Amino acid sequence: MEFDPWTITDIGDYEDLFHKFGMEPFEKYKARYSDLRYIRRGIVFGHRGFDKIDAAIQGKKPFAMMTGLMPSGRFHFGHKMVADEIIWFQRKGARTYIAAADIESYLMRNIPLPEARKTAVEEYLTNYIALGLDPKKATFWFQSDYVAPYYRLADVAAKEVTFNEMKAIYGDLSNGKIISALKQAADILHPQLPEFEGMMPTVVPVGADQDPHIRLTRDIAARLNHTYKLELPAATFHRFMEGLQGGKMSSSDPKSHIALSEEPKSARKKIMSATTGGRATLEEQKKLGGIPENCAVYKFYLYHFVDDDKDLKKIYEECKSGSIMCGDCKKRCADMMEAFLIEHQKKREKARGDAIKLAESNSKK
Amino acid sequence: MEFDPWTITDIGDYEDLFHKFGMEPFEKYKARYSDLRYIRRGIVFGHRGFDKIDAAIQGKKPFAMMTGLMPSGRFHFGHKMVADEIIWFQRKGARTYIAAADIESYLMRNIPLPEARKTAVEEYLTNYIALGLDPKKATFWFQSDYVAPYYRLADVAAKEVTFNEMKAIYGDLSNGKIISALKQAADILHPQLPEFEGMMPTVVPVGADQDPHIRLTRDIAARLNHTYKLELPAATFHRFMEGLQGGKMSSSDPKSHIALSEEPKSARKKIMSATTGGRATLEEQKKLGGIPENCAVYKFYLYHFVDDDKDLKKIYEECKSGSIMCGDCKKRCADMMEAFLIEHQKKREKARGDAIKLAESNSKK
Repeated sequence: MEFDPWTITDIGDYEDLFHKFGMEPFEKYKARYSDLRYIRRGIVFGHRGFDKIDAAIQGKKPFAMMTGLMPSGRFHFGHKMVADEIIWFQRKGARTYIAAADIESYLMRNIPLPEARKTAVEEYLTNYIALGLDPKKATFWFQSDYVAPYYRLADVAAKEVTFNEMKAIYGDLSNGKIISALKQAADILHPQLPEFEGMMPTVVPVGADQDPHIRLTRDIAARLNHTYKLELPAATFHRFMEGLQGGKMSSSDPKSHIALSEEPKSARKKIMSATTGGRATLEEQKKLGGIPENCAVYKFYLYHFVDDDKDLKKIYEECKSGSIMCGDCKKRCADMMEAFLIEHQKKREKARGDAIKLAESNSKK
Repeated sequence: MEFDPWTITDIGDYEDLFHKFGMEPFEKYKARYSDLRYIRRGIVFGHRGFDKIDAAIQGKKPFAMMTGLMPSGRFHFGHKMVADEIIWFQRKGARTYIAAADIESYLMRNIPLPEARKTAVEEYLTNYIALGLDPKKATFWFQSDYVAPYYRLADVAAKEVTFNEMKAIYGDLSNGKIISALKQAADILHPQLPEFEGMMPTVVPVGADQDPHIRLTRDIAARLNHTYKLELPAATFHRFMEGLQGGKMSSSDPKSHIALSEEPKSARKKIMSATTGGRATLEEQKKLGGIPENCAVYKFYLYHFVDDDKDLKKIYEECKSGSIMCGDCKKRCADMMEAFLIEHQKKREKARGDAIKLAESNSKK
């Protein structure tokens, strides 16, 4: 097999998830679902229980996809990856469920509910729809503003988890952590209640760091079998996109990310000053080539801007061979970024009305 | 002042509540509200914040009364006292709010929600209405089956209480205790939300053992002032009616209580074998008289069956003087009990339909 320069195969820090915690590699489904860039390139690298989702997709049987958004800070290119995944699942036929975790953002980050509501619409739903989510085929709710069976499920789930189990995941406990954990379990499981879809395979696309929550929710689902009929929720796990300066891409650090509502000129500047995989001197780089694996700019090609693997390979090899220097490469990326944002922000304008409608669709106020 | 044999003045075990915890004696309102037997006889002996309720009643201004029922076991004569109090408040003009704590009974006592629902209707609501509650002027809900603003309030309140504060009341914590405490706070405070009455004096008639919960809820109300406009809830405190064998009257011990749906002959038998304040021998009793203060039978006269103070005084003095023996006295009480239950159970039949309607009135299922 030819070496794929565009495929991430090093799971590094994530190794333990497979060996200690029983996550399964996504490898086996990669060819079948290679139409999603993140799967094709090994960015989605693990799963739990995906076999039932695969069977549902292949058999054209009903299944659900649930995602939660934290209505805090701006929607950036890390979030775009999740959005692309949920849109992909929706197009594969998933009944689409989207939670705004406004109770969690209030209890854990002190964000007032009205502010969370605004952020959910402006930053999340507007971008989801602009990126291609069909709002007419999605169920959306705020944790603070929903229906009785959802709250009942969260409250009943409280009996199925011990303090020790929670401490293993959350460290020292607080009311806020407990309430947030139970709401998250209800977010994921309630689509399977008789008032919604009934028992149904459900998939949650998440970052690998979310696995403890997924495991807890699967345990809760299994233990609730005295009262509810629930499939254990499946999950797909992706690696994170690193930030512009290396390290974590974070909503709370504007230097680490570019928001999808960011002024295109400002985004351009951020790309131009991003950390690259370049060498100490131009001479050295011409001789040794750059290191795209360590380059924040290359990650934008890999995750977002270059869908054709051949084109990506070309960029990769230009870098590796030392035939392009970082300045020119960043300029190319900045052009792509600017074009993308200008186009996307037009779509955002069109999406805004639908986003507001979706936000209100389950509001009981 | 003449000595009132029918007035309980010994607050004994409750003394600390006044001196350490700042509960106030109800004495000052006793004359004004002597139409309620429990107030007139000192059974309602303490309060917090009743001044605002007094002002509302006197000024014919709006106020709310909230009560919670634990849908577990049978509705007995201890519960009847609470029911009489809430009916009295309703007749004084209170907006009447009644919670069935089915989430608490599930989490803390393992009672399945459908069973709790049945108990709430059969045992509680049916008896409330048969005793005189006007269901058309009452708001009723199950903790498991209500509206978003209620759940939101409970969740937001989670941020206002520390583990240490909860531990001081509940001992070692569990998810169940935390969820139950927060639900109880929302039960008491949500009538004041803009979606309900708006900010309004609210009174909760409870047993003296509930004071820690009242204090916690008052603290939560005060701390929530950044988001909600809430009067600190007021409370009236009654002493407990002792059980048939002395000690606690308990739903879970049929020998300690008589249920209001109990077969009248069975109730008669329980009265005939109740613990009295009689002496060791008939002779001794004729000489020294009985001790009504220690008599479970006398408590039925005092709390429930003899509303006229003169009649009660006569019974008290007959006992004290040794002119009536326990057998005859119990027979008299058993006759009253039988007559009461026969009459009450007819009213229960008539009340059943309204009770079912009330139970469903806020159901979102």
